[in-house]
Amino acid sequence: MANALSQLFGIRYPIVQAGMVWASGWRLASAVSNAGGLGLLGAGSMYPEVLREHIQKCRKATDKPFGVNVPLLYPDIAQLMEVIVEEKVPIVFTAAGNPSLWTAHLKSHGCIVVHVVSSVKFALKAEACGVDAVVAEGFEAGGHNGREETTTMVLLPLVKKAISIPLIAAGGIASGEAMLAAMALGADGVQVGSRFVATPEASSHPNFKSEVLKASQGSTELTLKELTPVRMLKNPFYEKLQELYRQGASAEKLKEALGRGRAKKGMFEGDLVQGELEIGQVAAQINTLTPAGELVREFVTVYNQEMLKLKPLD
Amino acid sequence: MANALSQLFGIRYPIVQAGMVWASGWRLASAVSNAGGLGLLGAGSMYPEVLREHIQKCRKATDKPFGVNVPLLYPDIAQLMEVIVEEKVPIVFTAAGNPSLWTAHLKSHGCIVVHVVSSVKFALKAEACGVDAVVAEGFEAGGHNGREETTTMVLLPLVKKAISIPLIAAGGIASGEAMLAAMALGADGVQVGSRFVATPEASSHPNFKSEVLKASQGSTELTLKELTPVRMLKNPFYEKLQELYRQGASAEKLKEALGRGRAKKGMFEGDLVQGELEIGQVAAQINTLTPAGELVREFVTVYNQEMLKLKPLD
Repeated sequence: MANALSQLFGIRYPIVQAGMVWASGWRLASAVSNAGGLGLLGAGSMYPEVLREHIQKCRKATDKPFGVNVPLLYPDIAQLMEVIVEEKVPIVFTAAGNPSLWTAHLKSHGCIVVHVVSSVKFALKAEACGVDAVVAEGFEAGGHNGREETTTMVLLPLVKKAISIPLIAAGGIASGEAMLAAMALGADGVQVGSRFVATPEASSHPNFKSEVLKASQGSTELTLKELTPVRMLKNPFYEKLQELYRQGASAEKLKEALGRGRAKKGMFEGDLVQGELEIGQVAAQINTLTPAGELVREFVTVYNQEMLKLKPLD
Repeated sequence: MANALSQLFGIRYPIVQAGMVWASGWRLASAVSNAGGLGLLGAGSMYPEVLREHIQKCRKATDKPFGVNVPLLYPDIAQLMEVIVEEKVPIVFTAAGNPSLWTAHLKSHGCIVVHVVSSVKFALKAEACGVDAVVAEGFEAGGHNGREETTTMVLLPLVKKAISIPLIAAGGIASGEAMLAAMALGADGVQVGSRFVATPEASSHPNFKSEVLKASQGSTELTLKELTPVRMLKNPFYEKLQELYRQGASAEKLKEALGRGRAKKGMFEGDLVQGELEIGQVAAQINTLTPAGELVREFVTVYNQEMLKLKPLD
């Protein structure tokens, strides 16, 4: 176990598969954990009893550590947390909310707790709340994102300097080269989201996976900054939002247009017109559907190869 | 000479100091070149005869290679190019315009030509025009920027894969760690802007330099996307623009508010209220005014140190 992060999680490689809504079920998480990374279940798109089922199936599919990602603004958060504690999930990633609410509770039940942030301010807050590690996620990341728009390249050294617990890099990381870059910037490991959407194991709809493979530079944008900023593919639903912006729509009007269940419609049901398709800028680098375990091995191989190619300045 | 880029330029370290308006005169460029990097004069803020003076002074101050950065939308571009050719400037970086216009002309006069891009599309176009290298600049960079908002982390591997000439990384690079990350992502060298503003040698106004030192996460934003996108500090002039946006101002109205000479007013004359203050997100990492030559040496030392700290995954 090479570093602080693999030691903390009891895994071989400090590669975390992000717990993404509508993508990260037990098939994906167990495949990543079996390959030596850390698989996460995405509780944000699961009812408490669905999460329980995924935890139990994941445990049957791997004897390695895995975790759950919980967005803290989830409506039935208490029930989710109950399931997590009852099922003795060893590792919990919390996001999109206040880390003071659940960290102590989870830790008192023996969980390792990691919090996702997009700023130095919240990294410090999470550390003060007693989390074991922090994910710092840059502007290029898919899905919900910070308001400061700080990119991974700029954010990582800032957070590294501020905290003393392990740091996990997220946003723009879809290859061993990018993992190496993140480690050079001070990260102890990486969290990879978008790349794991383009796997057979991801529970995302095949239509959505195809769109991810087709994406190129400029195919995504961070929008809905008035509500919760979110990066998505520029599909007809996105265009409808932009039309509302051009008409000077209020936040209320935008919220109405967003409605409920948009992300499920797009990413799980495969409605490419009416649905919301959350993915990172790095989709532009993704051109193949590849099994998750193979991706983990490819990350490791490329990381090691590229590391050896770096030459000192002299 | 370690790599393709230092060989191309005939320099010791593949570290380019960006030719920034109102910052990059002969003092800064010669200090960087004397330290083994490549100093660039920023012709974008110079009349042709002022540029001639800076070239001549720079040549007296260093016997090492240096270059000039030329924004191709400069109104008296033909006169600038005449000065560059007459003064036998060995290296020219072109930006903000079409590389087909001047590349052949400059090359026929023996110049090495580099073009700055923010997308794969324009990197390919520049390569087809015969440039010797490309600068790929990410969303986090200060000043004028691309419309796709692609960050350095995502942009570099995309451009690297597309072109076969040397690649220079720009945007978010203010330390040896970030340089190492850029090299891991496939760059052959780096272009550093914001960090060199905070030097005694930069011709920027001391008031502006102080603001750069004070900047923290979220202090800058890419705005004026309807005109030419530009990243600036959030000062009262920026706030005035945002007020216009809230009122639904047209592009014409924004252009009128921008007026002429805003950048000079802010960055050269030190008017922190009415002036435009262009700087990168990475200003948040900059806390000291440091001589430019010392910065080059610090980049090299830190790069080498951090390279040795990288460990293989096993």
